[in-house]
Amino acid sequence: MTFGNTSTLPQTPPVEDDSADFIDLRSDTVTQPTPAMYERMRSARLGDDGLDGDPTARELEARTADLLGKQAGLYVPTATMGNLLAVLAQAGRQSQVVMESTSHMFLTERGGATLCGVMYQGIAGVAGAMDLHALAQAVQPGNSLRTELVCMETTHVNAGGTVLPLAHMQSVCEIAQAAGARVHIDGARIFNAAVALQVSVAAVARFSDTVSVCLSKGLSAPAGAVLVGPAETIARTRKLRKMLGGTQRQIGVLAATGLEAVETMPQRLAQDHALARRLSDALGKIRPDRIGITRPASNIVFVELPTNVPDSQVWAQELKRHGVLIRPWGPRRIRLVTHRHIAPADIDAAALGFQLAARSLLD
Amino acid sequence: MTFGNTSTLPQTPPVEDDSADFIDLRSDTVTQPTPAMYERMRSARLGDDGLDGDPTARELEARTADLLGKQAGLYVPTATMGNLLAVLAQAGRQSQVVMESTSHMFLTERGGATLCGVMYQGIAGVAGAMDLHALAQAVQPGNSLRTELVCMETTHVNAGGTVLPLAHMQSVCEIAQAAGARVHIDGARIFNAAVALQVSVAAVARFSDTVSVCLSKGLSAPAGAVLVGPAETIARTRKLRKMLGGTQRQIGVLAATGLEAVETMPQRLAQDHALARRLSDALGKIRPDRIGITRPASNIVFVELPTNVPDSQVWAQELKRHGVLIRPWGPRRIRLVTHRHIAPADIDAAALGFQLAARSLLD
Amino acid sequence: MTFGNTSTLPQTPPVEDDSADFIDLRSDTVTQPTPAMYERMRSARLGDDGLDGDPTARELEARTADLLGKQAGLYVPTATMGNLLAVLAQAGRQSQVVMESTSHMFLTERGGATLCGVMYQGIAGVAGAMDLHALAQAVQPGNSLRTELVCMETTHVNAGGTVLPLAHMQSVCEIAQAAGARVHIDGARIFNAAVALQVSVAAVARFSDTVSVCLSKGLSAPAGAVLVGPAETIARTRKLRKMLGGTQRQIGVLAATGLEAVETMPQRLAQDHALARRLSDALGKIRPDRIGITRPASNIVFVELPTNVPDSQVWAQELKRHGVLIRPWGPRRIRLVTHRHIAPADIDAAALGFQLAARSLLD
Amino acid sequence: MTFGNTSTLPQTPPVEDDSADFIDLRSDTVTQPTPAMYERMRSARLGDDGLDGDPTARELEARTADLLGKQAGLYVPTATMGNLLAVLAQAGRQSQVVMESTSHMFLTERGGATLCGVMYQGIAGVAGAMDLHALAQAVQPGNSLRTELVCMETTHVNAGGTVLPLAHMQSVCEIAQAAGARVHIDGARIFNAAVALQVSVAAVARFSDTVSVCLSKGLSAPAGAVLVGPAETIARTRKLRKMLGGTQRQIGVLAATGLEAVETMPQRLAQDHALARRLSDALGKIRPDRIGITRPASNIVFVELPTNVPDSQVWAQELKRHGVLIRPWGPRRIRLVTHRHIAPADIDAAALGFQLAARSLLD
Repeated sequence: MTFGNTSTLPQTPPVEDDSADFIDLRSDTVTQPTPAMYERMRSARLGDDGLDGDPTARELEARTADLLGKQAGLYVPTATMGNLLAVLAQAGRQSQVVMESTSHMFLTERGGATLCGVMYQGIAGVAGAMDLHALAQAVQPGNSLRTELVCMETTHVNAGGTVLPLAHMQSVCEIAQAAGARVHIDGARIFNAAVALQVSVAAVARFSDTVSVCLSKGLSAPAGAVLVGPAETIARTRKLRKMLGGTQRQIGVLAATGLEAVETMPQRLAQDHALARRLSDALGKIRPDRIGITRPASNIVFVELPTNVPDSQVWAQELKRHGVLIRPWGPRRIRLVTHRHIAPADIDAAALGFQLAARSLLD
Repeated sequence: MTFGNTSTLPQTPPVEDDSADFIDLRSDTVTQPTPAMYERMRSARLGDDGLDGDPTARELEARTADLLGKQAGLYVPTATMGNLLAVLAQAGRQSQVVMESTSHMFLTERGGATLCGVMYQGIAGVAGAMDLHALAQAVQPGNSLRTELVCMETTHVNAGGTVLPLAHMQSVCEIAQAAGARVHIDGARIFNAAVALQVSVAAVARFSDTVSVCLSKGLSAPAGAVLVGPAETIARTRKLRKMLGGTQRQIGVLAATGLEAVETMPQRLAQDHALARRLSDALGKIRPDRIGITRPASNIVFVELPTNVPDSQVWAQELKRHGVLIRPWGPRRIRLVTHRHIAPADIDAAALGFQLAARSLLD
Repeated sequence: MTFGNTSTLPQTPPVEDDSADFIDLRSDTVTQPTPAMYERMRSARLGDDGLDGDPTARELEARTADLLGKQAGLYVPTATMGNLLAVLAQAGRQSQVVMESTSHMFLTERGGATLCGVMYQGIAGVAGAMDLHALAQAVQPGNSLRTELVCMETTHVNAGGTVLPLAHMQSVCEIAQAAGARVHIDGARIFNAAVALQVSVAAVARFSDTVSVCLSKGLSAPAGAVLVGPAETIARTRKLRKMLGGTQRQIGVLAATGLEAVETMPQRLAQDHALARRLSDALGKIRPDRIGITRPASNIVFVELPTNVPDSQVWAQELKRHGVLIRPWGPRRIRLVTHRHIAPADIDAAALGFQLAARSLLD
Repeated sequence: MTFGNTSTLPQTPPVEDDSADFIDLRSDTVTQPTPAMYERMRSARLGDDGLDGDPTARELEARTADLLGKQAGLYVPTATMGNLLAVLAQAGRQSQVVMESTSHMFLTERGGATLCGVMYQGIAGVAGAMDLHALAQAVQPGNSLRTELVCMETTHVNAGGTVLPLAHMQSVCEIAQAAGARVHIDGARIFNAAVALQVSVAAVARFSDTVSVCLSKGLSAPAGAVLVGPAETIARTRKLRKMLGGTQRQIGVLAATGLEAVETMPQRLAQDHALARRLSDALGKIRPDRIGITRPASNIVFVELPTNVPDSQVWAQELKRHGVLIRPWGPRRIRLVTHRHIAPADIDAAALGFQLAARSLLD
């Protein structure tokens, strides 16, 4: 695990930086740009994206839309803004937007609903997949609010990186369309889903009108996301993006890293998935009588902590003493994410750290 | 006028790029990054700004807050988002936000009001400065909506880059405070105001609680802005920024260009102002009987077109034929902006272009 | 001036009741129900307006729609709710609603905008009539927010009960329609406008899609209003009314008074107008050198107080000592409204009161 | 079952009126005013509630606040508006309001959330009582939206008129207060809850900051509701009521019926409860093998229809043929509500009607 570009500023850093010399399994958002990304940043053609359009951003938008089988794309600072724009453009005031009740949009991005004059309605699910009967009930025309948008998330972070089956996605899509609603995919990790399903990303995106794609997770771009969908919808989001303050000027410097990300990084996600399985296997042997380890469908492993063991904060501290950074995911769960900076040897070292931590905490 | 980094992508550009080989006076937002900015992008220390914080972004936030005499700062993708966050953090639901009726926030960013459950109230002004009597009326406690925020803009783009007198700013501040309202400065070009007033930028920012500072206009960073203000307010905007989708991960790659911008670029704005005066002088001689030319206080010159001459769209096309790009600012006004890519020779060439255009259009 | 039904509750009243034994010129909203209204309240057929519909409310809705030449009507607790529903049904999120900048909707009801995700944009006017050039500018498609609704108010309370000329109304309508916007009339006193113009109320309502009509001003119903317009629009407002909490169950008891109001009261408004002229004439003779008196177009007279005379609060107190209740309308204006409880003798007595007050305050 | 005042208007009624000559068990909202209410309407002292205040409305507000042990009250057209004002006054923008997921506010009034910039969050419950563990999770400070209001509903209509145990209400209140949130009770039928619990209504209202009380259900007033709570909160809702269009002028004509309702009607609710039990007993004997009948805690009985019997719409039609009006409550449930117009003999007749319908539909 190596990081470039860390030696520039000699003064005391203004933030605590715990990541150096640790095996950082907290998130795939910690990934640093690749050398090729730095090169593309340096050489990108730039324009004014609030005026004529930035040529590199336009190229990234077109390339991503193509990859996902959609007509058009819009560069946005984050997938969160992509999701919010999808709602603003597709769900009118006094409508409801329906989604699985543990999805990232529902649990973490619900503030968006308070800006839009819409209601986010959560639907119970299993492994991130909404209960189809409950969905059908929720979108019935007789309800007090008309449903105008149905959202899915794949891979689904709070279900542990699970991948929605394509047949499920098709059913959601059919139920939504029958009710006159559009479909949006929060595709923060949709490339992971495609890799896990061994299909093209367009095959996953097929069951939707719009998709937001994050460039800064496993794909390693420093920042940025792309919202793709029908040309007319995307044209409206371009105007709404300005309203939200998401229209950046010579943004080609960042969009260039996004081009590198979508062109070259998806193929390497299979390695992250393999490492997640290796991690799961290794951890599963440590104390199967006391802690649960999920079988990863993609690059996320959950450690489940029963109430008779110390909670996730205690584990986080103990694991850090053994060189491993993890993320508490509620008091009884730990989230581990594999990514580009994690090598096979790091998995073995992390497993050892867990073994030592388990010895301290469980015996 | 030279641009770097334009030769990378050989394929047909996906956007029309009119700017090469033209004297582009449309906006100071067209400025490209400096070589030093590229160098800082390459070497910036990066972190995850949604997790521990990105060290370069934190440094830029602290540096900008310092420069403006405020406690804390928040990196945002655009000044528009900075303004919107200032409203969200300082004006509650069912309140009104008062500002000059031709300000950028009122005319162009008013969509923000529709997201916030607040009402933007425009106050008539002269040269961008609100009528103080009308302001006092508008913020009276008896009104149907309580005023919680008063905004100023300096330099004021739609008034032609005018600079608010410090005494005026103080009066606005006193009226607002007497009514229990906070004060925000849309400081998209606040460094231009400081240069024009020959005071520190902190001396301008003094008459406010919060200020948004744009890094991508005359300061030439490719993108980004910083919102500065009291630590407690900024802490709240940090959470709200996530809701809007403005929290970018390894954003240090861009923040690094912002550091270069605030550290090295303000001093060069005086040149832009001098060139604007030179441009005004040159244009003023062309056809003073038919078209009006404003005396610039900063880097913006307006050409006023009476109804008996062709409108601004016609001028834009004719001027382009003579190598000059300008921006119609309504049908009877043309906006000209000087910036880092404009040299003294460009001013003379632009004046010549105007002379030729005037000959075609006025004779 | 007599009031019925004031002797029931012997205990100390829970509110200050200043109106008994005074000539109350504060508002036509103070009018009490007529004996015929009490009779209709007693005998109205009632139903559940949240279930099958209340038959009396439905009858009032149909009758009012008919009178105004519209397809359908909706009973609402107040004209304010009628105006708000007109906005909710006709102006989508992130749109703007344009109206004269001293209209009641703009000055007093603007809180509604904060609930709807729309922006209320005020247009300068003369005598309540918007400047047509400014209106045309405001609704241009290129603006940051799309205009979806244009509102007029006639008679216009804050302009002193002025009546919009029909030709003006037609022009507003044409400008709105050309821009793809709908037109709403805040017709709180539209029957006064029709009487003043000596045309049918339908002839006034013609230049609009929707109109809200207040039943409790000069028409003397205790409460209630009706929103009328196209059947499809009204059907949507019926659902939105429930959301706002405006769907009352056996509301026929009140709607019955509204039926009496629209059927029998419009014809008597001419008397109010005549009395307003008589009042204006009498007051105009008192101290024309010191105070201004408007010529009423309907039932409202303004007394204009220059800055060298005591302000409106002082006048209100002094006039009360002389038996006259008036309403300060800002510090430099007094509003006087004639209505059903004002007889010719009251006008003479009120004029005498003014004379005595003027003697104390001006000499 | 008799209705007064139905013979006035001889013409064809503009609405379908199915209720005459039927046993109407659809809702307690169908109750007509009592003769005493008509008498009080006739004799009520009236004022202008938008100006000095209407004396009868003020008296009703004070009386209701007293009864519920609160400082102040506000007359509103409906309990729905009372609930909405409670949210507007107590939950700021970008907050969440937590309530049981089948409550009337969540299922039917959620449009209110879309006006307020808040998120309504539903919590799973049993018999209308929120799961306390889930509630505690939902209000945790670390969540993406801060919880500012927790709502309860008692009796709980969608759980079948269940009564929240006081100990449960106290727990909810403690959890809310510990999280810094206020508590509101949707008390549309709070008098029914008090009667069922055999305590004063103040003893039920105790576990809340604000309560909305409906006057037009079992209490039989034609329309209206009162929101009660702390004086400062109610003062704010008085201003917000104007914004929503809920401030009616001489509303004493209706408020007078509300006074009669709160003074004389609560004591008779016990009869409705006894009749509901009698109805449940009678229905329970009809076909216990095929349809389920709930044991009523107040005045509501549910008939549960398994999927192997015809659905609720079919039952509604068949029962109407036998003289009984009921309300489908989803496809598999029928709602029956007892009220003032239902006599013991009506219960027996309704039971007979069910027996006949069951014979047609189940055999």
